[in-house]
Amino acid sequence: MFSQRIVATYHVDSDASRIADRAKSLAIEQSVECPLEAVPDPELLETIVARVEDIAELTAGRFAVRIGLASATAPAEPGQLMNMLFGNSSIQQDVVLADVELPEAYLHAFGGPRVGLAGIRALTGAYDRAMTASALKPQGLSPDALAGIARQLALGGVDLIKDDHGLADQAYSPFAARAVAVGRAVREANATTGGRTIYAPNISGTLDDMRRQLDVIRTEAIGGLLVAPMIVGLSNFHAIVKEADGLVVVAHPALAGAARIAPPLLLGRMFRLLGADATVFPNFGGRFSYTADTCLALAGAARNPWAGLKSCIPMPAGGIHVDRIAELLQFYGQDVMLLIGGGLLAARERLTEEASQFVMKVAAHGKG
Amino acid sequence: MFSQRIVATYHVDSDASRIADRAKSLAIEQSVECPLEAVPDPELLETIVARVEDIAELTAGRFAVRIGLASATAPAEPGQLMNMLFGNSSIQQDVVLADVELPEAYLHAFGGPRVGLAGIRALTGAYDRAMTASALKPQGLSPDALAGIARQLALGGVDLIKDDHGLADQAYSPFAARAVAVGRAVREANATTGGRTIYAPNISGTLDDMRRQLDVIRTEAIGGLLVAPMIVGLSNFHAIVKEADGLVVVAHPALAGAARIAPPLLLGRMFRLLGADATVFPNFGGRFSYTADTCLALAGAARNPWAGLKSCIPMPAGGIHVDRIAELLQFYGQDVMLLIGGGLLAARERLTEEASQFVMKVAAHGKG
Repeated sequence: MFSQRIVATYHVDSDASRIADRAKSLAIEQSVECPLEAVPDPELLETIVARVEDIAELTAGRFAVRIGLASATAPAEPGQLMNMLFGNSSIQQDVVLADVELPEAYLHAFGGPRVGLAGIRALTGAYDRAMTASALKPQGLSPDALAGIARQLALGGVDLIKDDHGLADQAYSPFAARAVAVGRAVREANATTGGRTIYAPNISGTLDDMRRQLDVIRTEAIGGLLVAPMIVGLSNFHAIVKEADGLVVVAHPALAGAARIAPPLLLGRMFRLLGADATVFPNFGGRFSYTADTCLALAGAARNPWAGLKSCIPMPAGGIHVDRIAELLQFYGQDVMLLIGGGLLAARERLTEEASQFVMKVAAHGKG
Repeated sequence: MFSQRIVATYHVDSDASRIADRAKSLAIEQSVECPLEAVPDPELLETIVARVEDIAELTAGRFAVRIGLASATAPAEPGQLMNMLFGNSSIQQDVVLADVELPEAYLHAFGGPRVGLAGIRALTGAYDRAMTASALKPQGLSPDALAGIARQLALGGVDLIKDDHGLADQAYSPFAARAVAVGRAVREANATTGGRTIYAPNISGTLDDMRRQLDVIRTEAIGGLLVAPMIVGLSNFHAIVKEADGLVVVAHPALAGAARIAPPLLLGRMFRLLGADATVFPNFGGRFSYTADTCLALAGAARNPWAGLKSCIPMPAGGIHVDRIAELLQFYGQDVMLLIGGGLLAARERLTEEASQFVMKVAAHGKG
């Protein structure tokens, strides 16, 4: 089952004269991590030591190095897979983890999104159009104040409302009190409008903490959750995905770094593989540094056909304004969920109207 | 208790004309994360919005920006503290998290190393000299083969033997079988020599997995453990530290990145704060990119006096050869544990002698 090679592509800065050696040392670093003289069993040189599959020059001084890693070293355990892909090399400044091809056994073992893009459409009734999301902010508000904002957003008809990723279990807004208050506000608003807005509170802390938070989510019949996989650890993220079956799992990119692991790989492919139904990422032209190409590649990795895995819906975010809706829907197409947080919240008492405008603009796009 | 500010220092690439604005936007990103018009309660502008404390030019186009973060946003929960320090900014390529000053309440809440540097000296009997460590490699060997290597290393008298961080729970070397075999080999070698070598198997996976592995460690009376905090998540790392009381906790830098969070801060100060008794890091002049200055700053952050916290012993590693012992002990002083893995293992059947040479050279250093 796990006898095939994982093929990882690294982008490496190097002189042309040294790239062959550098590629070999990278293969050793990410497998046996010792001089080959220290490998006592010659069979391991064949079966365990990673091998350089090929080297291609990308630009002067930058190479794509494809390395075949033995699947046996990385059982289908998310943290260990990441460890074998980039554990030590993450500390070497000349290397970026650019892409990974995984044997199908990993896809079956990890399973990908449980709800997925089509599942979110079914839950929200949002067929045939792009989707909308907003965020509860700012830090410092009480559960009731946040519930008030959520009510307005839900009355405005956004498909999904997530906690700001900074909302955790603070004294001014304990997780349980917030999830209960916001969950009820959203449910009441849904009852008023006949809408189906999903709420995704942010879970955080240890796996124990997250399980307690998941209990609150279940008890309150809340439909989703937000989690930052790179902060809680990929293994714990995947454990929660398995326990949150039926809930919409939204992944947040906090602590994901700018570029040492290519964003399409980490936030698109890896988070999807481990079960994110939706993946938040910084949109181009906002206050983050991703390019349009990176964003499109990330969206593709999240939603394009990939063996039997469900699609994960891309959620561009980070300072999007409503006046960019047409441009962004043109760019991403309709299999996207636009996340506008701060740009709506500044409307304050006109928040419902502002949210409603956002929703209508998205729904009307392309319906000419 | 948590009313004081956390002061985070970021290094920011910027034009001089734009740094004031960039610093303000960074303060917003790491606190309310929305336009200030969207903050409905004016009190929050004072209490919750982070503030720029000062800005100093480091070099042309690079600035040290000190930002005061409200402690209330980051309760003493390791993942959330990291989230508020660098969650979103980690995705902005112009920013490095360089340093953090924490109110004392965090030190009390997290507690730092439980065993600490002096505790490791007491456990191993290694007073008045630098300490020695080695690693079990390569990937692919069976528990018995690894136990054979461990026996030789322990007979040679190294103070600590850790699993290679790539050893997890693979089919060819399941955690429990490995820990039992190696633990017994080290215990037998200790009985033979009268030595007190500590074994630190690598624990990994979800918090549940790590607890099961910790049970094996306890049952087998093994003295330590290795864990990669950035892979398992800082919160779970700290949970394990609390449950591993009395065991030597060795932190591994896998997935810690090259430099977006300054290594002295992350691998020195933060890992120590959360309870690492020893911290492995890539030594200068090896196959990683840290400079001598970075290594010395990291060692200082790990071991220098810091309020009431115990010291964490620095463990430089990564391609160290025995011929550098004198140089490195001159450089680090004696409060260090030199980790030589591959450089010893290439000796194969002469491993005990090679390890013994390593131990004697370290013990003899500076004894004229």
